[in-house]
Amino acid sequence: MTRDELYANIKLKKSFLCVGLDTDVRKIPEHLLKEEDPVFAFNKAIIDATAEYCIAYKPNLAFYEGAGLKGIQSLYRTIDYIRSNYPDQFIIADAKRGDIGNTSMMYADSFFTEMKADAVTVAPYMGQDSVTPFLGHQGRWVILLALTSNKGADDFQYMQDAQGTPLYRKVLAKSLEWGGNPDNMMYVVGATRAEMLTDIRRTVPDSFLLVPGIGAQGGSLADVCKYGMNDKCGLIVNSSRAIIYADKTENFATVAAQKAREVQQEMAAFLK
Amino acid sequence: MTRDELYANIKLKKSFLCVGLDTDVRKIPEHLLKEEDPVFAFNKAIIDATAEYCIAYKPNLAFYEGAGLKGIQSLYRTIDYIRSNYPDQFIIADAKRGDIGNTSMMYADSFFTEMKADAVTVAPYMGQDSVTPFLGHQGRWVILLALTSNKGADDFQYMQDAQGTPLYRKVLAKSLEWGGNPDNMMYVVGATRAEMLTDIRRTVPDSFLLVPGIGAQGGSLADVCKYGMNDKCGLIVNSSRAIIYADKTENFATVAAQKAREVQQEMAAFLK
Repeated sequence: MTRDELYANIKLKKSFLCVGLDTDVRKIPEHLLKEEDPVFAFNKAIIDATAEYCIAYKPNLAFYEGAGLKGIQSLYRTIDYIRSNYPDQFIIADAKRGDIGNTSMMYADSFFTEMKADAVTVAPYMGQDSVTPFLGHQGRWVILLALTSNKGADDFQYMQDAQGTPLYRKVLAKSLEWGGNPDNMMYVVGATRAEMLTDIRRTVPDSFLLVPGIGAQGGSLADVCKYGMNDKCGLIVNSSRAIIYADKTENFATVAAQKAREVQQEMAAFLK
Repeated sequence: MTRDELYANIKLKKSFLCVGLDTDVRKIPEHLLKEEDPVFAFNKAIIDATAEYCIAYKPNLAFYEGAGLKGIQSLYRTIDYIRSNYPDQFIIADAKRGDIGNTSMMYADSFFTEMKADAVTVAPYMGQDSVTPFLGHQGRWVILLALTSNKGADDFQYMQDAQGTPLYRKVLAKSLEWGGNPDNMMYVVGATRAEMLTDIRRTVPDSFLLVPGIGAQGGSLADVCKYGMNDKCGLIVNSSRAIIYADKTENFATVAAQKAREVQQEMAAFLK
């Protein structure tokens, strides 16, 4: 999917919501446990209920790998389901991978060719040759970790060099040298760090940012828009738990749709 | 596996070799392609041929995920095979994971409970809550990326703060504050950075280091031992391509055994 196509979807749906499919079999409504593949049954219901209000889905790989082989199977079925039924959705494999060059190339195959995701999240610690193998896949995206939403982000990401440049800003700047641009790379910036978005926009004014951390993690959508939005939106805001686990009864999909719609309506106002 | 058990195996086998199972179906001998699961058939032959000379196996997850569902299946079969036939082998899931706390917990489940690996490699960029969920699993290990063997390591890992402390050293020091110790945590230090081992040993004198980069990547075993060995060996040295792809004919397993034995013999000399 190109940046223009993504922005067109955002305008059409008046939404830049990404629904995070962090599906844990221990947290889904009990009545689904009798299904042959409860995780897929849950995802399917959530997707059917929310697709109208969002422009992206982000399965977090950990939740599927955590269930072993059958978990990976549920993940593939989920992605196939989105691809077949909602081809306009942007699919993000939230995998936070990154390894030496020949290995990152295998990961790129895994996510872009086998899994058919539009984008994959990548960790920057290992530098250039761990990131660039994910580039150069027509219409596919790297989403590089810059400033994450968790508490541990404070441990290294704000570390400053002798000139006062923090690590996260070095990551942004280096990624541009590596061939990252607004048409093939996005960045993870946590909603819990909204005030930092002004600084981040100085380095990557036109790039899309994937913003986790609203909802369960406490970030504010208003602040994210205030500091992070650009003239082509430039934001994909993720919400996982606050939508998919909003209700644990047989009514879960209806409630998820309501929650997604609430966020979409807020977003529509910010998009004006 | 405890540190004492690992060291006992090292003394018994006079080896601290880890064979990296970076198995790519495009690189294995052609005659195996007629097998029902060529990747597993290859791994099984390599394992049977090399188990005598090594103390650990390190499947790199990328190579299995790259083949989709059937790749993951080959991986599980490989690990089950090692567990059943060579229970003294230390199994490292080379996954380089790391995510927000609740997600890292899922990954820990994936690798320690579902996959039954002894250790998993973890990337430090997201800080404390991305790493600590992997700790506290009795007899299981975190292997934290410190100084990697690839060229991209230069991009961020040597970045110095105003006091001249490089990022990789901060990672080591922080990990000790987080509850990492020589009995539950190891560190990845590339053999291509052997001269840095002296510095690393100042911060983590007793910890095991997982050292990739000898063989195809060009690191020297002599230098790694000179600068990195401690009184309980403290080293697990990985070789992947130079062993498993040393020969591409029907003779591949025999040649792999020869290559592994050559490394083991060198190691035996350094262990004296």
